[in-house]
Amino acid sequence: MGDTPHLRLDVEVLDRNIAAMAQRARAGGARLRPHAKTHKCPQVGRRQLAAGADGLTVATIGEAEVFAEAGVTDLFIAYPLWVDADAASRLRALAGRVRLAVGCDSAVAGANLAGLPLEVMVEVDSGHHRTGVRPADAGTLAAALAGSGLTVRGVFTFPGHSYAPGAGRGAAQEEAAALAEAARAMAAAGVPAGVTSGGSTPSVAFAGPGVVDELRPGVYVFGDAQQVELGTIGFDEVALTVVATVVSLAGGRVVTDAGSKALGADRAGWASGYGRVLGEPDARVVALSEHHSTISWPGPLPALGSRVLVVPNHVCNTVNLAREYHLSSGGTWPVAARGRNC
Amino acid sequence: MGDTPHLRLDVEVLDRNIAAMAQRARAGGARLRPHAKTHKCPQVGRRQLAAGADGLTVATIGEAEVFAEAGVTDLFIAYPLWVDADAASRLRALAGRVRLAVGCDSAVAGANLAGLPLEVMVEVDSGHHRTGVRPADAGTLAAALAGSGLTVRGVFTFPGHSYAPGAGRGAAQEEAAALAEAARAMAAAGVPAGVTSGGSTPSVAFAGPGVVDELRPGVYVFGDAQQVELGTIGFDEVALTVVATVVSLAGGRVVTDAGSKALGADRAGWASGYGRVLGEPDARVVALSEHHSTISWPGPLPALGSRVLVVPNHVCNTVNLAREYHLSSGGTWPVAARGRNC
Repeated sequence: MGDTPHLRLDVEVLDRNIAAMAQRARAGGARLRPHAKTHKCPQVGRRQLAAGADGLTVATIGEAEVFAEAGVTDLFIAYPLWVDADAASRLRALAGRVRLAVGCDSAVAGANLAGLPLEVMVEVDSGHHRTGVRPADAGTLAAALAGSGLTVRGVFTFPGHSYAPGAGRGAAQEEAAALAEAARAMAAAGVPAGVTSGGSTPSVAFAGPGVVDELRPGVYVFGDAQQVELGTIGFDEVALTVVATVVSLAGGRVVTDAGSKALGADRAGWASGYGRVLGEPDARVVALSEHHSTISWPGPLPALGSRVLVVPNHVCNTVNLAREYHLSSGGTWPVAARGRNC
Repeated sequence: MGDTPHLRLDVEVLDRNIAAMAQRARAGGARLRPHAKTHKCPQVGRRQLAAGADGLTVATIGEAEVFAEAGVTDLFIAYPLWVDADAASRLRALAGRVRLAVGCDSAVAGANLAGLPLEVMVEVDSGHHRTGVRPADAGTLAAALAGSGLTVRGVFTFPGHSYAPGAGRGAAQEEAAALAEAARAMAAAGVPAGVTSGGSTPSVAFAGPGVVDELRPGVYVFGDAQQVELGTIGFDEVALTVVATVVSLAGGRVVTDAGSKALGADRAGWASGYGRVLGEPDARVVALSEHHSTISWPGPLPALGSRVLVVPNHVCNTVNLAREYHLSSGGTWPVAARGRNC
């Protein structure tokens, strides 16, 4: 224990990841609006903006408030908020700096936002089947929103079905097709899409040039075990690890103090375990409790009390569990929007 | 959104759960030392103590500090801490109020604790295969620890293999057998076990009377979907839910704003989904993102903007994500030890 488990952020790798994604977007002729729910940290967001990002994406009003407070002036809350009186008043305070999402074609959804002095983006479902209307219905929805006084800025989708082995390219193709169809429908309805926005870390390498003109990947900034196992990145692109101490070798099992309260409990059906170990590519986190990770370790076992760098499966949930980043260069940055779920 | 997702604590159900477990322990002739990692909340811990618990169990030094600060004088850190200089100094400050665990028979583990003015408990593995020595080795370990100047108070185990359908009774039998064997080995080694401690929520109903003289269940205080699906409790024993708002009905899918950053991402292999819904026993959380839960909903769909009470799979991880409890009786209690992982 002592000061483990804690987050370690390799700033050199972070900066490489930020530069590489900025370059990829530029090469594809797309603007970049990274999803800040991954890092929840103004210091990281400012580096993304300095590298050429147009603005940031967030998931909640609370996250928008944290980044607006830090001076970010162009935020997209890519979430179909249900806006009550309190939320409306918080959103009014952010007017001019945030753009909202509408992810449902119920008349109630539009009515719920009516009167807010904010631009909105129509969400379409490109195959992830979570929120968003069918692309063919984007025109009708956009016209209804415009009719109720809202300014419709464009259309977006999240190709989350890219999170499966080999699925990145196909998800990107469906994303491009959905956004193109939605843009046509919106143009036909007299509400042209000024922005067509997409992107996820596993699909962004395949994002349709000329169709998807804004990209919103999040995880790329840190990388995680899911991206390694999807083949999106190599271990050398993992910037964020959880520093853990080996607390037990009983029964020949390597057990560390990085459990689900430090790593998060994410485990996709296709994942090889609950996380990986930096520098030990054949090790696997095979069992996870709140304060224990049991690691299958192929080589000579690490010593009791030694430290290992665990690569979490899903870094967004990992970061949300911590108060701060410990930087490889010394010092800390706060996870300023930790737990800002509403 | 507005103020969802947030934790709702039904204080009436909480008090019933606390009273029922206290009664169960008394009836079995065992003392009760509930695991406070579940609630991380002095207000809940005090209610457990007022109902007759001897003390509390915690998982980290940080949790011990929070409860000691709140006036709790008898704490067991049921975790095989690796103690560095900083941890040693924090533990010294808690002397007289905490008891430590030793979960590994390496000489290094004992040497690591030598000199600390604290009682220790030997951990044995009763079938969960995480930390803890073999019961037969408990005597040798206890003698080594006593030899290095530590006061050995007793033996404990966590029968975590009770977390599978139908496994509670068998895990409790193995727990009793392991503790009995360890106690014999310790007596033979001249270091008798003053306390034999066990217990987990799914196994506690079967805990061996006359063998297990201290019980450390945690989840029972709130209940969760795992316990419902294991058959340990009914929905009427679920005290803690996540209040969520229906944010989308696109495609006929009920999507709420309680995602993995509010519920936690736990999903055991045998779980029916990522959570349940109070009052809708046939509903299932079938997909989970950070800020979305997609719920299969058999009856007429709830309205957009309406609220549902989601029962998380694993309440310990859920609570750790929140700042406070919203009480059914009005007001809030803090999750005081949130994120105190070290």
